[in-house]
Amino acid sequence: MVTVFVHRDGKTEQVKSIDRAWLNPAAGAILWVDLAKPSIPESLILSDSFHFHPLSVEDAMSSLQYPKIEAYDGYLYIVLHGIEINAPAHCFSTHDIDFFLGPNYLVTVHDGDSRSVTELRDHAPRNIKICSEGPVALFYRIVDSMIDHYRPEVEKLEDQLDQLEEAIFDNPKPALAREILDKKREVASLRRIILPQRDVIGRLARRDFVDITTEMSFRFRDVYDHLVRIADDALIFQDRITGMLDAHLSNTSNRLNEVMKVLTIVSTIFMPLTLLSGAFGMNVPLPRFPGSDAAQFWWLTAISVAVIVVMLAFFRRKRWL
Amino acid sequence: MVTVFVHRDGKTEQVKSIDRAWLNPAAGAILWVDLAKPSIPESLILSDSFHFHPLSVEDAMSSLQYPKIEAYDGYLYIVLHGIEINAPAHCFSTHDIDFFLGPNYLVTVHDGDSRSVTELRDHAPRNIKICSEGPVALFYRIVDSMIDHYRPEVEKLEDQLDQLEEAIFDNPKPALAREILDKKREVASLRRIILPQRDVIGRLARRDFVDITTEMSFRFRDVYDHLVRIADDALIFQDRITGMLDAHLSNTSNRLNEVMKVLTIVSTIFMPLTLLSGAFGMNVPLPRFPGSDAAQFWWLTAISVAVIVVMLAFFRRKRWL
Amino acid sequence: MVTVFVHRDGKTEQVKSIDRAWLNPAAGAILWVDLAKPSIPESLILSDSFHFHPLSVEDAMSSLQYPKIEAYDGYLYIVLHGIEINAPAHCFSTHDIDFFLGPNYLVTVHDGDSRSVTELRDHAPRNIKICSEGPVALFYRIVDSMIDHYRPEVEKLEDQLDQLEEAIFDNPKPALAREILDKKREVASLRRIILPQRDVIGRLARRDFVDITTEMSFRFRDVYDHLVRIADDALIFQDRITGMLDAHLSNTSNRLNEVMKVLTIVSTIFMPLTLLSGAFGMNVPLPRFPGSDAAQFWWLTAISVAVIVVMLAFFRRKRWL
Amino acid sequence: MVTVFVHRDGKTEQVKSIDRAWLNPAAGAILWVDLAKPSIPESLILSDSFHFHPLSVEDAMSSLQYPKIEAYDGYLYIVLHGIEINAPAHCFSTHDIDFFLGPNYLVTVHDGDSRSVTELRDHAPRNIKICSEGPVALFYRIVDSMIDHYRPEVEKLEDQLDQLEEAIFDNPKPALAREILDKKREVASLRRIILPQRDVIGRLARRDFVDITTEMSFRFRDVYDHLVRIADDALIFQDRITGMLDAHLSNTSNRLNEVMKVLTIVSTIFMPLTLLSGAFGMNVPLPRFPGSDAAQFWWLTAISVAVIVVMLAFFRRKRWL
Amino acid sequence: MVTVFVHRDGKTEQVKSIDRAWLNPAAGAILWVDLAKPSIPESLILSDSFHFHPLSVEDAMSSLQYPKIEAYDGYLYIVLHGIEINAPAHCFSTHDIDFFLGPNYLVTVHDGDSRSVTELRDHAPRNIKICSEGPVALFYRIVDSMIDHYRPEVEKLEDQLDQLEEAIFDNPKPALAREILDKKREVASLRRIILPQRDVIGRLARRDFVDITTEMSFRFRDVYDHLVRIADDALIFQDRITGMLDAHLSNTSNRLNEVMKVLTIVSTIFMPLTLLSGAFGMNVPLPRFPGSDAAQFWWLTAISVAVIVVMLAFFRRKRWL
Repeated sequence: MVTVFVHRDGKTEQVKSIDRAWLNPAAGAILWVDLAKPSIPESLILSDSFHFHPLSVEDAMSSLQYPKIEAYDGYLYIVLHGIEINAPAHCFSTHDIDFFLGPNYLVTVHDGDSRSVTELRDHAPRNIKICSEGPVALFYRIVDSMIDHYRPEVEKLEDQLDQLEEAIFDNPKPALAREILDKKREVASLRRIILPQRDVIGRLARRDFVDITTEMSFRFRDVYDHLVRIADDALIFQDRITGMLDAHLSNTSNRLNEVMKVLTIVSTIFMPLTLLSGAFGMNVPLPRFPGSDAAQFWWLTAISVAVIVVMLAFFRRKRWL
Repeated sequence: MVTVFVHRDGKTEQVKSIDRAWLNPAAGAILWVDLAKPSIPESLILSDSFHFHPLSVEDAMSSLQYPKIEAYDGYLYIVLHGIEINAPAHCFSTHDIDFFLGPNYLVTVHDGDSRSVTELRDHAPRNIKICSEGPVALFYRIVDSMIDHYRPEVEKLEDQLDQLEEAIFDNPKPALAREILDKKREVASLRRIILPQRDVIGRLARRDFVDITTEMSFRFRDVYDHLVRIADDALIFQDRITGMLDAHLSNTSNRLNEVMKVLTIVSTIFMPLTLLSGAFGMNVPLPRFPGSDAAQFWWLTAISVAVIVVMLAFFRRKRWL
Repeated sequence: MVTVFVHRDGKTEQVKSIDRAWLNPAAGAILWVDLAKPSIPESLILSDSFHFHPLSVEDAMSSLQYPKIEAYDGYLYIVLHGIEINAPAHCFSTHDIDFFLGPNYLVTVHDGDSRSVTELRDHAPRNIKICSEGPVALFYRIVDSMIDHYRPEVEKLEDQLDQLEEAIFDNPKPALAREILDKKREVASLRRIILPQRDVIGRLARRDFVDITTEMSFRFRDVYDHLVRIADDALIFQDRITGMLDAHLSNTSNRLNEVMKVLTIVSTIFMPLTLLSGAFGMNVPLPRFPGSDAAQFWWLTAISVAVIVVMLAFFRRKRWL
Repeated sequence: MVTVFVHRDGKTEQVKSIDRAWLNPAAGAILWVDLAKPSIPESLILSDSFHFHPLSVEDAMSSLQYPKIEAYDGYLYIVLHGIEINAPAHCFSTHDIDFFLGPNYLVTVHDGDSRSVTELRDHAPRNIKICSEGPVALFYRIVDSMIDHYRPEVEKLEDQLDQLEEAIFDNPKPALAREILDKKREVASLRRIILPQRDVIGRLARRDFVDITTEMSFRFRDVYDHLVRIADDALIFQDRITGMLDAHLSNTSNRLNEVMKVLTIVSTIFMPLTLLSGAFGMNVPLPRFPGSDAAQFWWLTAISVAVIVVMLAFFRRKRWL
Repeated sequence: MVTVFVHRDGKTEQVKSIDRAWLNPAAGAILWVDLAKPSIPESLILSDSFHFHPLSVEDAMSSLQYPKIEAYDGYLYIVLHGIEINAPAHCFSTHDIDFFLGPNYLVTVHDGDSRSVTELRDHAPRNIKICSEGPVALFYRIVDSMIDHYRPEVEKLEDQLDQLEEAIFDNPKPALAREILDKKREVASLRRIILPQRDVIGRLARRDFVDITTEMSFRFRDVYDHLVRIADDALIFQDRITGMLDAHLSNTSNRLNEVMKVLTIVSTIFMPLTLLSGAFGMNVPLPRFPGSDAAQFWWLTAISVAVIVVMLAFFRRKRWL
């Protein structure tokens, strides 16, 4: 779906098609063209009306671009990632949005699910400020809203890590290894998206490209700041996950220790007693304990109890009990 | 709570409100405005009187800023972290303090618990030097005091690590894994606060911003030095914690070895003896040892003792005993 | 085999030998010389006709060059790696292709199996555009096709990693350790080829060498982008393999835990019962349970069942069952 | 203790106090002032005579400075670390020496135990060259001697690592874990001292500060070289210690394997035999082996021997024996 | 042994001593002075005839220099490492060669065993090209030959790693841990020698020093390329060794698992059977199985076989068999 807004003479209107004259910056018109899940014919506007470089058009139409910023003759081509709202609740996922930022126009290309773009598009006809401030400010509005959507996702991820950590210490199970490694991959993919995104915005904030005003660079610096924070959080998450893996491994070893202690204590107590009972079952006359026939049994019981007591004392001194 | 000090004509007075004229550096007035846990109306002073950029005002009012320094038109916006004195005794915690440093004014924004600021604020009316040396010197005084409060916290952390290390070697328990990982996170959060803080002060010491005198750059270099030292300590702590995890893992393995040795020694001694007693309990006539019926038992005892002696010698040669 | 194409006066012809005059850029001829598995006499063309530096000729004739770009007087010498199609299906392998890129000629040297070069060579006589756009565009066409062949290999590798990961969690076997380490080496060799290749193309995209037009730099930037993506994938693969090793180690420990639990449970249940049976086999009169002779056996059975129940309850509370 | 040397008119004399006139470089006097464990009144010379910046004086009087170089107005303030000779024999320890290097003077501040300084101080009255070459040469002499004292300490550390390594492979004990970790910390502290020291000298060798002659920069480059070598050794030591930890862990696992093999072999041999003896002790008539009553026993013995032989063959095939 | 070659008027002659006039570049003479294991008097030539800086002479006479390049007034002092041919066959070892490279002379200092230097020295009187091309070309010839000797050593190391890897997977033994760690140290020492060597040659190739012609820089770039390859190989070797350590650890764990499975299976089968036999040996009348006295035994056998079958099925389902 193609939506075209043109801001001229203090008014923003939605129009059907683009007038060539508007593309001339001297004409004083500001254009916003949004392509939501464009069909092939719809996408022709990129090459036919705007004469964008074929390589940038190809990138915009493909769906697996990492965040980047590229200067072409007369415009900047920018790819950023927004949070995927349709993703399953337990995992972190993004989709790319492409921007063509020219002197007096902004073209946005996305798969139709971008909240940041659609909200702004719905408000554009009524809110005159959206388009009147120029394409860089419009681009900033979209980016700012996109990055704001990251925060709740990062917090969700943090909650999941908290729960996982709790589980590792309170209810250790072998299956946690897989969950830890799944989270590790999720955090790695968060970092992989955030770091280039941060660099893109950082270059805008540092005004590597001449067409950014001081005011805009302040705003991009603010967005940059948010991205630095998220990248930092991702690094902390990685550290925590490494710690969880260590804790999980340590748990496994400790559980093995516990199992072996039980086995050793039981064996060490019962083996001497079993020998004793075996010895008194031999067809060989054994020396008698003093006392009657019945007393023999109590002697044996006393010896057994003594063996048990000695063993338990030994284990206690070793701090196994 | 808003506190305003103005230094004019060699005197420092606390005043109720800000006179617009003072903001002109040419007027020769030096201003210190402190906002402790400002209410929304109180915070309006930032935008209405000082006309600070909305983004910096927003950052100052939010509470989760990492240390940073940002140049705006006519002033520097700086975030630093002070030690949280109300934190629970066993953990390390900080709160952020925001500074607006202009040519002839300093505005401080904090949550009301900053010792460094409140102490200075209490002395300002009496000690004329505090405000008369200009806003940079005033800023330096606060920062120097904030960083001085770090040292005891770092030493407390070091003591806790010493104790933990002692415990690992002298009284190993599975539960130590969690304590080690908790300390690891605490040290990581110390580094995360210290490193950007160090960079902020380092930029001031290197005079990246023109309004720092040589004398002030010497002083900031001194503070920078302290921060480098603390960052260095944090790195050492990390190394030590890695060592502790290794030691803890090695302990766990050694304890397992010990448990298994006990089991193996006991089993290896008792199994042959149990077989012997079982053999002599069979309903099958066994060859007799030379001697009387009673001697049979002593023969068996002798064989058992021989088995035990051989086993113990074997274990000693293997250095298990 | 030596193939020579010359583009003059709007026509591309395949010729037998090189006319010295064509080498002068002013002559307006564009040359493409392809050496597929050249014999020693064939390779003399490099030094005799083109007067390439002996060191670059030597490198071109040797077969173990890593990707690199080197400026010599009047030409660039470039080594890139293409995917080896004859390699065994389960492993990743490449072969090097050498390029001599001059002002009006391109010389390609390879071992005869390069799909990218041979396809283009077969089309050159018919497709006039291939040679007419100049040697840099020709070089770009070959490189673009080479890099396109990487994508399916990377996806194959990803599939193999997916399968391996599945196997680790669903069907853990000691032999997986070797498979994981084999994949680790394969991924390392992918990175080792991709990283210098990326740097070579990156230098062309950044126009470190003056003879690249803006349009060509856009195209090389596009190839560079693909290589960055592959390098990024390789890094992710490495991360995943590290995770697999961790999971494999954790699996091994968990299996050991399981084995030991079985042993401990069995021993802990049977040892007391064996002692009981041994005790009642002694030649020593034991106190009788109340009831008849036959009831004695049922008393013993009851005690045994009680022991088993107590043990199972104990193990359940320890969460071993 | 304060010692003052002044070199004037080709003579070096030890004097009681400093003449203000000497401090003027134009006067042609060269001064060396050494403060060994200075008392508070003695330290006043730094601020009163030399007017050093209060921050550098404060640093010089404190005892926990890391190596650094700082330019102040008219002089360099340098902190370096010398080997502590009073340290316990088994560990590596340093103390800091502070230098104030001016155009015609050198002030050294230390805790009185610096061999490098005291030796030179004792020779200064007799050896005219010591002071006559100027303060930079004098500083170089002290530094060169300090760094020379590092070599034997590094070699001692290397010997200790050799012994530890030998012990790990020849006489593995759990207690080695602690020794390895102690050495790890010692090596880490060596690196922490050497790296900033190397950077300080490197800056002098690169002539970052204008008052170093070419000849002096050659000499500092030589000292720098020694420090690079020591830093390199420290890195090797770290690698070796990591290897030792791995070896220690591997040893622990191997010992566990050995223990478990003994247990398994013993159990696997005796359990069937014990069952056999138990079976023939049952109150249930068993089928008789052919032959006489006495032959029964030999049949059982033969079966037992067969069981043992089969088991041993099985273990040998598994390479457990 | 000192050997002096002088190239004048198109002829190379070996002479006994150096004529001062030759040292003047304007005289048109090219000098090569080789000091093989020089005695103290022989080494005086360095300071007396060439007036080299004492620090560089001292370095040249000492034997533990790492590769480096240093510019002195009028000459470059270079240290490189050649392969030690007298080293024991199973380990990698080098010796240092020192070069003084002046405008018209080259001085080489080595311990007498350098193949690269001695071969060239033996050919110098006959092969006029060796000296006539000037000292830089002569230096290049030696360096090229030195680096060529590295290749076979690196391949030998690779073969040893292949064998070690094979052994780890096919014939795992605890003693392999030591071999792996020994190889790790060897590879680390290879890297430690190669990296600075690569940097030295890289600086020559980049013409950091003005007296290198374009042609020479091409040649040094070629040598640099070889060194980059070797450094790269060393890095791969390190990766492989890390993988071997992981595999070795995994092997140890797997063997332990195997041992414990055998123990558990044997115990789990024999313990119930031993209890059964014990129960039927009790002095307590047990309920009879239906059938004759002789049938009792076959009932017991049947029960035992059933127990074994059930156990084996259980272990098979757990994939332990």
